[in-house]
Order: sequence, then structure tokens, then C-alpha cells
Amino acid sequence: MFRKRLYFDYASATPLDRDVAWHMRRYLRTGFGNPSALHSEGRRAKEVLDEARARTARSMHAKPEDIIFTSGGTESNTLSIIGHITALHASGQSYSDMHIVTSHAEHSTILHACQALERKGVAVTYLPLSREGLISVSSVMAALQPNTVMVSIQYVNSEIGTSMPVRSIAQSVHAHARKHNKTIVVHTDASQAPLFLSVQKDYLGVDLMTLDGQKMHGPRGSGVLFRNGHIRLEPVLYGGSQEFGLRPGTEPVALALGFSLALSKAQEDWKQVREKGEVVRDYGFSLLAKEIEGVVINGSRTHRVANNIHISLPGYDTTYLTVLLDREGVACSTRVSCEGRDGGVSQVVQMLHGDESISKSTLRFTFGPDTSKQDMHRLVVRLKKVIQFLDQHSFDVF
Amino acid sequence: MFRKRLYFDYASATPLDRDVAWHMRRYLRTGFGNPSALHSEGRRAKEVLDEARARTARSMHAKPEDIIFTSGGTESNTLSIIGHITALHASGQSYSDMHIVTSHAEHSTILHACQALERKGVAVTYLPLSREGLISVSSVMAALQPNTVMVSIQYVNSEIGTSMPVRSIAQSVHAHARKHNKTIVVHTDASQAPLFLSVQKDYLGVDLMTLDGQKMHGPRGSGVLFRNGHIRLEPVLYGGSQEFGLRPGTEPVALALGFSLALSKAQEDWKQVREKGEVVRDYGFSLLAKEIEGVVINGSRTHRVANNIHISLPGYDTTYLTVLLDREGVACSTRVSCEGRDGGVSQVVQMLHGDESISKSTLRFTFGPDTSKQDMHRLVVRLKKVIQFLDQHSFDVF
Repeated sequence: MFRKRLYFDYASATPLDRDVAWHMRRYLRTGFGNPSALHSEGRRAKEVLDEARARTARSMHAKPEDIIFTSGGTESNTLSIIGHITALHASGQSYSDMHIVTSHAEHSTILHACQALERKGVAVTYLPLSREGLISVSSVMAALQPNTVMVSIQYVNSEIGTSMPVRSIAQSVHAHARKHNKTIVVHTDASQAPLFLSVQKDYLGVDLMTLDGQKMHGPRGSGVLFRNGHIRLEPVLYGGSQEFGLRPGTEPVALALGFSLALSKAQEDWKQVREKGEVVRDYGFSLLAKEIEGVVINGSRTHRVANNIHISLPGYDTTYLTVLLDREGVACSTRVSCEGRDGGVSQVVQMLHGDESISKSTLRFTFGPDTSKQDMHRLVVRLKKVIQFLDQHSFDVF
Repeated sequence: MFRKRLYFDYASATPLDRDVAWHMRRYLRTGFGNPSALHSEGRRAKEVLDEARARTARSMHAKPEDIIFTSGGTESNTLSIIGHITALHASGQSYSDMHIVTSHAEHSTILHACQALERKGVAVTYLPLSREGLISVSSVMAALQPNTVMVSIQYVNSEIGTSMPVRSIAQSVHAHARKHNKTIVVHTDASQAPLFLSVQKDYLGVDLMTLDGQKMHGPRGSGVLFRNGHIRLEPVLYGGSQEFGLRPGTEPVALALGFSLALSKAQEDWKQVREKGEVVRDYGFSLLAKEIEGVVINGSRTHRVANNIHISLPGYDTTYLTVLLDREGVACSTRVSCEGRDGGVSQVVQMLHGDESISKSTLRFTFGPDTSKQDMHRLVVRLKKVIQFLDQHSFDVF
């Protein structure tokens, strides 16, 4: 019997959009010049790169010169945090006179970059998530100190999918900074956002924003750092003067082209995609609550990205569940893939509930544009089957 | 009349190989999983990534765990220099007790990374090129100091194409270090080498080696750092545990696949490619010497990569020449593209001749696998035409 494969791990990786792939292929068929070269091949590559930059800028309501192409979210995040703090240090501010506000729930890129800065003397406040999996404006404001130079709060949590009030945070932090006649740079990692939320810079009002091509049906290995022109950054890689001197290396034109097309499509369609997704998501939530005994839903039901269903099944092991679901034709995630292949405890969910049986039994289902209510139904049927199997075989997993 | 376009800028960028592109497309048609995920899609991506790593290792006679995929030569170089010195610093060695030997002719990545380390107190010796454009083993050995921790010498100069005795340098430096019971890490930027020279690690004997996909008909945005397992490195980007904790970020599997196939092809074919290239190159040199009055050939004729012809035409301006040649259907380079689009003086050629009229009139012709003697003939005819035009119009460029 044919059984439909259900890919429920879009937050980890999205397939490359067909149109985007077609345009990249078309460019690569003849285009390979180095954008820094003077000849026609180089100028053509430069043109395509400039167009990709302008297209990206239009999608974000930004200026082309504020768009820095990188190799992905990891690099954009590192360049934001390390790049800005290093620039402040280079201009004479000592590390021990700097303070950063971020959260415990940030992507490992941000957390590890902040830890590296702590070793140099920078103070960092890591805000916890609320029980709803959110970060409030007031908690950010309460954490500000006279020497706070930077706030970095994710737009969407990559694990439980909750969306943070980044716009209000940016407004309040900037108002506070103006009042005290100083500058606090606001960064957001918006990698999980563009398919479902606006990433327009004038809407969000942030100074730095990370985007990742592979999270929005663009090419793997492509990313962007949006930077408001006046924000000082030091490069983290050394070399030529490409990307305004902030990201050396011959520009991968095809990747930039693919990124720009994927972002453009995402930002044209996000309202419809979100609307459609929320219907499927909420159907999934009610089906799970009805059909699966003891299911715990993690994170706010409303302040949440449209394609994320995150649950715990206390008493069951996250890795066993994932592996058995895979065998049943469902691809889903234990926690977040960037933490590596070992399952274990979800730190984010532990923060929400403070209960290890919940944080050890997490499942993340993140679905795509073609996922239907019927697919949700299929998912729940297969999940029940896996639970039944586990109950019967009573693995001694703890 | 149809006029064949002559692309003579392969050292700046090579087109993506058709077979490589085909395999990347084939993978991307269905493959998009995150290699860190537990499900089938993730495991398949992990398999393709592991195969790409194993294939790369085979080409280099290295172990798979010594292959670190990066976003290109710039990142591999930064990770080598900054990564190793930072690791030594983290283990307690002070910056002011470290010394690096490199050359004035290195790629800007190495030069800028070394300059950044100098600002932290590291001492750096920049060796000059000989009149032949070479770096001798004895000059490296003479530069060693009791606190030398690292030597970084390029395999092939990206501008004038001279090839350095990296194998002998690595042997002598390592013998010296053993004798003094210490460790000196030898790095080489081999980005320009794989199409024409062996990059096998047991042949070269280096500890760290930079490779770049786009210089050998592989995908732009892909690179490798080969690292002998015992060499300590600190990552320069922060995040997950991918690439042995040295290069975080979801692995761009298609790029790694493309890189591995391009390197494999390059290392299978290099002897024939080199042999064929040298015939065309030497024909070009003699034709230029015969036909173009006052031509200066830059760099050794023998210790030189097979596809590089580098000349000066004293009295003529490099940018004018390049732009007019482009109009005549020849794509070539003023100097190296990574230095940006402005022409000006070639620092490398200035080092060779100490004569500004020579270093301000450089032309780099780097050709590809299909370039023939007839193309060389075409090139010389067109160059003569450009010179004639410039003579007639006597631009006042200086």
C-alpha cells in the first residue's frame, strides 16, 4: 500500500524552490565571472549581484548598501554580535564596560558568541522565556543597564516556534537610548520568520537582522545580514573589500541571486501562507489534544509561527519517538537540528515547564506550504500507532 | 564577422563543470535534508556529505576527519591563521611570544589576518619575492625565530602564477622544529593549485591547506580547510557542532558534493592538463616576446603554473589595456580581482622589478582547458591592435 511520506521538518531545512532553482541554473549556464573583474563577464556578474542586492533591499524596505551577503544565518549572527562588539572595542570602549541583553532561548550561534565575549569581560544578561515561551518588552527593558550596548532577541524561536515582540522591543529600547542620549543596537535573528512574518526593516525597526536562505526555500549556504548604515561592524573574516569590506571573498553570485528570489517570494506571500498555515496548525493542535492522551503543547498558541506544532509526550523518549515516526513515514525533529544528533533534554522546554518528563519527550512538527488538514490527520494516526507500539514494548528508556 | 570571445581570467573565476553541475542538480532535485536530523531525509543528506568528505580526503590522501568544509578560500585562510593562533593563545601562550613567517605576496586574506594579529602583539615576518617571483626554502629558514609558531606560504601566487617550493619548505621547517623539540605549523594557500599540481597532503607535507571550489570548476561558495588532526584550531564563527565543531552552520551538502567532485576531477587530470597547458603557455610567451615590442615577462618561466601568462607593457596603463582588450573580445585581469576593481600599481610586480612603469602596466592572462595555440595567436593580434590604438590616441594617462 502506498503511504504518503510526511515531511514535518521545514524549520530545519526547506527544499529549494523550483523557480529559484531554475533562475540559478539559468544564470550558472553562462554566468561565472568574478564581480570584481573589469571585463564583460565580471560586469555581468556584478550586475546580477547588484540586482540580487536591490531585490533583497526592496523586500526588506531597506537600502541596497545595507544588505550584506553572507554564507548563512550562523555567519550573519556571528558578524552581528562579534562584529559590533569588536568595532566598539576598536573605537576605545573596553570590553568590561559593555553589556548585552539576549535570551537563553537564542540560537546556539548567539549563545556561543556571547559566551566568547563574556570570556573577554563583556557582561551578558540571558533572559528566560515565560511559561508561554515568550520574551516580554518589560523583561528586556528591566534588564537594560547604563552600559548596555546591544540587545539581541530572536524573532521566532527555532524550537517551539513562538514569535517575540521584536518591533515593540526595538521601539522601547531605542526610545530609552534616545532619552539617555546613547546608542543601543538592536539585533534580531529572523531566520525562521520570512515565510510567515514581515521582515521589513521599517516595520521591525531593528538595526541588525539575520536571514538565512535555506529556511525559506532558498539555497543552502546563503544568508544576509541587514545592517542600518550607521551601525559599526568589524569583519570576522579577513580578505578583500567585497560586501562593503564586511564580508571578504569572491561573491557567490548564484547563491545571492537565489537568496533574493526566495526572500522576495516569501515576503510577497507571507500573509496568505500564514493564514493557510494557521488553519492547518490549529486543526493539528485540536486533533492532537483530542486523540493523544497526556499531550502537552509547548509555547503560546497565538504568538507562534504558522507552521510550528511543538508538543511533549511525558514518559516517552524524544529520540525513540522520532526514529519510530520516521519508520512510519513522518520526518520530524526532536528539538533543533543545530544542537547535533543527540536527543536528550530540551533546554527551551525545560525553561517553560521546569519538568524533565516534559523536556525529555519533545516533538517538533514544522510543516510546509502543501501540508493539508488530511496530512495532519495522517500524522496523528501514525503518532498513535507509534505510541501504541512503545506502550506494548515498554522500552526501559529512562 | 564572428569573433571568438577569449576568456583569459580563469585564475579569477572558473565556470562550473558540467558534470559537477549535473550531480549537484540531481542531488538537489530530492535532497534537502539537514544532515543533523535523525529522519531519512537527514540521514540521506548526512550520507551524501560523508561521501563528499571521503571523496575529498581520497583526492588529498588525507583522512575524512581532516577535511573541514567552509564557504571558500577566504574562510579557510582565516580559520587557519586566526584559528590556530587563537587556539595557542587560549592554551596560555601570549600573543607577544608568537612569531609567524609569511610573504608579502600572499592573498589579502592572509595579509589582513596577519595584520590583525600584529595589532594583538604577534610578530610577523613578511618575506619578499625574489626577482623571479619565488620564495626560497633558505629565505624561510633564515626567517625562523625561537618563537616561530607558524609558517604560511602560498603554493601558487594568484597574480603572477609562480609556484613555491612548499614541499621543501614544509620538510625543512618540520625538521628544524623537530631538532629544536618544538612545533611549527605549516600552512599553504593552495587555492590556485589543484588543476595543475598535486595537493596530496603526504606529498606536500603541510599541516593546514586551503582549497577553494570556484578556482577549479567547482561551485562558488565552497571551500575546504585540510587540517592534520593534531593541529589545534579555534573556530572563527560561533554556533553548532558541525564540521567537528570548527565550522558551525547547517552544512550546504550540494556545495560540498560539488566541491568534492571538482577536486577529484582536478587531481585525476592535473598532469595532462599541466602538460597541455605548458605547451600553450610557452607558445604564448614566445609569440608575445616576438610580436610585442618592449614586453616584460613577470616571474619565473619554469616555476610557474601552467595556465598563467603575466606581462607588463611599460608606458601603458593596466586599466586602459584591460578595458580595451575586453572591447576586442578578450577577458583578462589587471592584477588580482580580490583587490577590488581599481587598477593601479601591482605590489607583487613592484617587488620583482622595483620599477613603477612595469608595475603599473601589468596584464594577467590565465587560460582554461580548451584554450589553444590559435587562441594565443588571436590574443596577440588583438593586443597589438589595442596597443596601436593607444599609440595613435596617445592618452595622457600618467
